Amino acid sequence: MRQDAAVSGVLRTVAVGALQLEAGGALPEVELAFETWGTLNADASNAVLIQHALTGDTHVAQGSGDEAGWWDALVGPGKPVDTDKYFVVAANMLGGCYGSTGPSSLDPEGVPWGSRFPFVTIRDSVRAEARLADRLGIRRWHAVVGGSLGGARALEWGATYSERVRHCVVVAIGGYSTAEQIALAQAQLLAIRQDPAYNGGDYYGGPAPTAGLGLARRIAHISYRSEPELNFRFGRRGQGAENPLEAPAGAAGRGRYQVESYLDHQANKLVGRFDANSYVALTEALMSHDVGRGRGGMQRALATAKAEFFLASVNSDRLYFPEQSDELARALPGEVPVYTIDAKIGHDGFLTEIGQLGGDLRRRVFTL
Amino acid sequence: MRQDAAVSGVLRTVAVGALQLEAGGALPEVELAFETWGTLNADASNAVLIQHALTGDTHVAQGSGDEAGWWDALVGPGKPVDTDKYFVVAANMLGGCYGSTGPSSLDPEGVPWGSRFPFVTIRDSVRAEARLADRLGIRRWHAVVGGSLGGARALEWGATYSERVRHCVVVAIGGYSTAEQIALAQAQLLAIRQDPAYNGGDYYGGPAPTAGLGLARRIAHISYRSEPELNFRFGRRGQGAENPLEAPAGAAGRGRYQVESYLDHQANKLVGRFDANSYVALTEALMSHDVGRGRGGMQRALATAKAEFFLASVNSDRLYFPEQSDELARALPGEVPVYTIDAKIGHDGFLTEIGQLGGDLRRRVFTL
Repeated sequence: MRQDAAVSGVLRTVAVGALQLEAGGALPEVELAFETWGTLNADASNAVLIQHALTGDTHVAQGSGDEAGWWDALVGPGKPVDTDKYFVVAANMLGGCYGSTGPSSLDPEGVPWGSRFPFVTIRDSVRAEARLADRLGIRRWHAVVGGSLGGARALEWGATYSERVRHCVVVAIGGYSTAEQIALAQAQLLAIRQDPAYNGGDYYGGPAPTAGLGLARRIAHISYRSEPELNFRFGRRGQGAENPLEAPAGAAGRGRYQVESYLDHQANKLVGRFDANSYVALTEALMSHDVGRGRGGMQRALATAKAEFFLASVNSDRLYFPEQSDELARALPGEVPVYTIDAKIGHDGFLTEIGQLGGDLRRRVFTL
Repeated sequence: MRQDAAVSGVLRTVAVGALQLEAGGALPEVELAFETWGTLNADASNAVLIQHALTGDTHVAQGSGDEAGWWDALVGPGKPVDTDKYFVVAANMLGGCYGSTGPSSLDPEGVPWGSRFPFVTIRDSVRAEARLADRLGIRRWHAVVGGSLGGARALEWGATYSERVRHCVVVAIGGYSTAEQIALAQAQLLAIRQDPAYNGGDYYGGPAPTAGLGLARRIAHISYRSEPELNFRFGRRGQGAENPLEAPAGAAGRGRYQVESYLDHQANKLVGRFDANSYVALTEALMSHDVGRGRGGMQRALATAKAEFFLASVNSDRLYFPEQSDELARALPGEVPVYTIDAKIGHDGFLTEIGQLGGDLRRRVFTL
């Protein structure tokens, strides 16, 4: 497949064939959507795979268009992941809604998969991504990098394709989803599934389950931010002129607290850009995250990993606690330090404060 | 009103008249349900009011029947709040569903209030409870005691009826609901209101919004327990023979994680015993919790409080953080220590580990 810096940061798709799935069943035709930045060098040794999180997309860095990327602080010309030197690839996760095969894709009969879309795990997506790497002529990634669910995807690369990952950068996630992470995910799944518009997943062509997806996002967003962050920004204030102890003129109910309005806004933003079935599929995949599953546990799964690991956590993260990154570090061969993103915001610090890791990443991983 | 130890721990109701409400509107006839234990002494100086939390009821202690009480470790014969010495009263909060006037009560025309039930605050309930105290011949409580929402109710007593509270015991809650507590409450309210069976609150006579209330409870319950508690108890295990990576025989979807089954159980238990509209009403009241509202802030609201305050927090509480109890202590006149319940479980330690406060409560508050 021809690489061209002129299409830097532009979405393309590639067919990677049929895929047998870990939890059973198969997808007859899988397409992966991806973007690239920079140019693959002659010996294909400068390729970097960047993995997005739950509701993320492939637009990691700005590239040749105008749209900002979600990790512009990390990826771009002259940035720590320097696209003048590295060939950067980002793929939409299998099951997603940003171009890769997912529940809203058409099945071979031309009907959206909807409720019939099978259970896909992170490992399934990584296996599809390995075929993308083959198509791109990349035998071994210089680095696979991700935060949150993207970090789980990076870690699975390191465990599944030990020979194909030189550096594995795992930010703000541990080696498995914990009971609490599963519990919070269950609440989000129920919020969507209990929306009557969801219709078991077969809502394409009808109204989308926006209320359910919006509630799922609210639940999630609270967990992405720290308590002090929410309290500092919003406290108990009412939204604008709204009074939480009074009904607004001509309306039922009471005025909103500012934090309610903020979460309404977060919910509405996501509902406008994300498919509820993909939210379910990727959340189920994240619940299944367990690098040690079927491999004799986390330590044995990683004992033969050839990659050099770079771990980091956000010190205010109360969804993926720093202790979980520390536990992962202890399970890895050798001495693996855990770098700290110092941020008050909580888990989302892996997005907003990723620049803090720039120096250490240049020294340890991106040394060209 | 005649007091009789033979009716110890038995539910009774008393009419306390019409009530103008803080946020506007009125209730034409308010009844409060309550239980008592022990005997009021001649000068009515041994009365203790115990305030239940969000989904709690009036059955604080076992009494003359067989049913266990939710604070049996604290209240009963020979217990720290010794019902051989103290006359203990517990009232169902206004808006509740354990006997006091609430959304499921009949209006003067004999129709359930449902969607027409007005917004009641904690202060409204405390004003109704003051009339109950009048009816019982209690001018001044020896102590008002509560945890979580019950603690907010106790604190409002201390601020609203400064002369009527000798000791004010506030456990596992601060002086106001924070942005995060409001945010978590909003998610729970939406879970109920988005259930089509809720029908704006007018579901009596039809199916109840059990799915929505169950989801609200799951969201809440996660916040009541600590992350280590959930992970220690459940980890990533499947429920019994269920496999979270496989569809159960003859069923759709996958098997459940143990923590999902646990939360299903918590949800089902609550749905079987609690009214969704009361959950909404009391959650709205809790969101409004702010002892300083309309009083020039927390410090000024409490500057003239005559009660001796006894504060305590649970060291693993991540819903009502110990820091919020510390902040309340600093706002109170004089030096007020904050006692610690040392428990791994999280917020629910105010229920399961209340016995830890027994010695200090005997020394400081219940000295008879």
